[in-house]
Amino acid sequence: MTGPRYPALIASLPSTVPFVGPELQERARGMRFQARLGANENVFGPSPFAVAAMQDEAAEIWKYADPSHLDLKAALADHLRCTPQNILIGEGIDGLLGYLVRLLVGQGDAVVTSDGAYPTFNYHVTGFGGVLHKIPYTGDHEDLSALIAKAAEVDAKIVYLANPDNPMGTWHSGAAIAAALDTLPDGCVLALDEAYVEFAPEGTTPDLDAEDPRVLRFRTFSKAYGMAGARIGYVVGAAETIKAFDRIRNHFGMNRIALAGALAALGDTEWLNEVIRLTAEGRDGIARIAKDNGLTTLPSATNFVAVDCGRDGDFARAVLAGLIDQGVFVRMPFVAPQDRCIRISAGRPEDLEILAEALPKALLAARITLNP
Amino acid sequence: MTGPRYPALIASLPSTVPFVGPELQERARGMRFQARLGANENVFGPSPFAVAAMQDEAAEIWKYADPSHLDLKAALADHLRCTPQNILIGEGIDGLLGYLVRLLVGQGDAVVTSDGAYPTFNYHVTGFGGVLHKIPYTGDHEDLSALIAKAAEVDAKIVYLANPDNPMGTWHSGAAIAAALDTLPDGCVLALDEAYVEFAPEGTTPDLDAEDPRVLRFRTFSKAYGMAGARIGYVVGAAETIKAFDRIRNHFGMNRIALAGALAALGDTEWLNEVIRLTAEGRDGIARIAKDNGLTTLPSATNFVAVDCGRDGDFARAVLAGLIDQGVFVRMPFVAPQDRCIRISAGRPEDLEILAEALPKALLAARITLNP
Repeated sequence: MTGPRYPALIASLPSTVPFVGPELQERARGMRFQARLGANENVFGPSPFAVAAMQDEAAEIWKYADPSHLDLKAALADHLRCTPQNILIGEGIDGLLGYLVRLLVGQGDAVVTSDGAYPTFNYHVTGFGGVLHKIPYTGDHEDLSALIAKAAEVDAKIVYLANPDNPMGTWHSGAAIAAALDTLPDGCVLALDEAYVEFAPEGTTPDLDAEDPRVLRFRTFSKAYGMAGARIGYVVGAAETIKAFDRIRNHFGMNRIALAGALAALGDTEWLNEVIRLTAEGRDGIARIAKDNGLTTLPSATNFVAVDCGRDGDFARAVLAGLIDQGVFVRMPFVAPQDRCIRISAGRPEDLEILAEALPKALLAARITLNP
Repeated sequence: MTGPRYPALIASLPSTVPFVGPELQERARGMRFQARLGANENVFGPSPFAVAAMQDEAAEIWKYADPSHLDLKAALADHLRCTPQNILIGEGIDGLLGYLVRLLVGQGDAVVTSDGAYPTFNYHVTGFGGVLHKIPYTGDHEDLSALIAKAAEVDAKIVYLANPDNPMGTWHSGAAIAAALDTLPDGCVLALDEAYVEFAPEGTTPDLDAEDPRVLRFRTFSKAYGMAGARIGYVVGAAETIKAFDRIRNHFGMNRIALAGALAALGDTEWLNEVIRLTAEGRDGIARIAKDNGLTTLPSATNFVAVDCGRDGDFARAVLAGLIDQGVFVRMPFVAPQDRCIRISAGRPEDLEILAEALPKALLAARITLNP
């Protein structure tokens, strides 16, 4: 009795996963987190209309969802002033990035990203045999011109850029991105991850024709719309490219409760604005707590704040461990020098109280452990 | 401005999709279906406990689901008397079959299936560059020994078998499958699609050790559990193979409302048994209606019935068109001679009344159109 035979590419892949979920950490610790501020979830939750729509749809779950997602695509097209043919809906940005890589990256094809940017994108590129070229951050910003120069140098199929950036929270103006696009080499696509764009200042998204074939914009209901557990992301791009995803996507992959919730969430601008306001208060609260502890923070156009712990990665990792020990779920950048920071999602006042309590102890412990 | 460049494999793929959803047909017709009996959905719906669990979870949708799916895997392991390490949870059997093909099939690798079996499996095989070898049905059953003989002949990576079969509803005994496994060539995996197995007679699933490396069993909450729109399937197999999926799966792909619903559904055996009873009544009702119209039906171990229209595929397609015209959503096999049948999902009494009304008219219209 033998088992399966894996192709060479699959055999070469590590079995590591992009992220460990907080639930596994909770099981390992034997206790629940007191504050869940590590995955940039939106603690303020979805629109009450979205909750009601999902509850109403629960009994209809015996039906498959419409695989063409006509209703949600029509609403998004209206929202974004494009056509439904410019929109693809899929299983979160994670799933959509996987489809993008499968669609464009053959074995050995070059892909460019920032060193320390979204690991799940890298996971997909490696998983389809692509070759990653990583550009360091410059001043805690993704380096737009260096990314594009590298793309030209290595004949890349894709350049990945998150704007605003995760994990740093920094951002470029939409005008800077539009200008950079004009220097993008032929045959390269900019994968513009706008997961956090609803939190960003006006003008952060480039003013582009949806039919522009050089860019695909990735958006989500996971962040500002408070529906991370629903798994609804979407891509905005040229109709011909969007149609190409039909060759490979899991057509019946969407949950119909989630689709109903997203439709309702999209319609509730009032709640969205309230979430954006509460998130800004949450960011301010994190900055205050950091300052009270002698730390600085980076400006952020997202629902999280990078708190600069003022020393190296080992020190920040010790602070992070101290917070987790005290029941505060947070994460941090993987790569130096960005790993001098820990990344804290904007919380409610009650979450931030727990953080305010825990941070000085975590800092003290880290200083005691790591001082000579 | 140029657009994306596709690898040769992707460029070669057709943009056709495995299935058109009834919603698109409804838009084309300008009216809703009166009876939804085409996608083998479970019209009796999910357990009321599952509905309640999903409604309770709606407000928690701001959190990502646990990517290791610990709770549902533990419950399934308990249910199936294996370990959680023998279980993989994913975005429906469709999504899981995609992962399987990606995991095992390199470009040019051989895969064996039945001619007329599940098109979405074929879609994945073609999509990853595999080469499909198709074995005709024998007496409306998938031909187990011919499938395995072909696998040996072409050095297949995967043999696909749905038991019970879709679209015919026929089945093999678990003992026959276990015996066939002993003849499976080394390095070939049996992908055993048991989507409908809860409806089948006792003994339809082979009595195998979960650690048997030769077979992966695919199951779902879409059929007997009435949660097609939730997108929860699972694979049961050897721990080492299950772990290999971690190299490629969309770790954060699952909807947390759906996971909560599945957990509750799994616990409600009473509802499951009631659904199985109602489904058997529905099958009997379809058989009666067929008989009243001079047609025969195939025995079925599923929640649908293949109704033999008694002539060729063109005739059955005309009958199908006549049913759809009258607002009855049904589908049919794609390949001769199985395409002499139409496939009707077990409905409630009110669904079957609509069918009973529509079928004679559809038959009459088809006879008028197609008779010389």
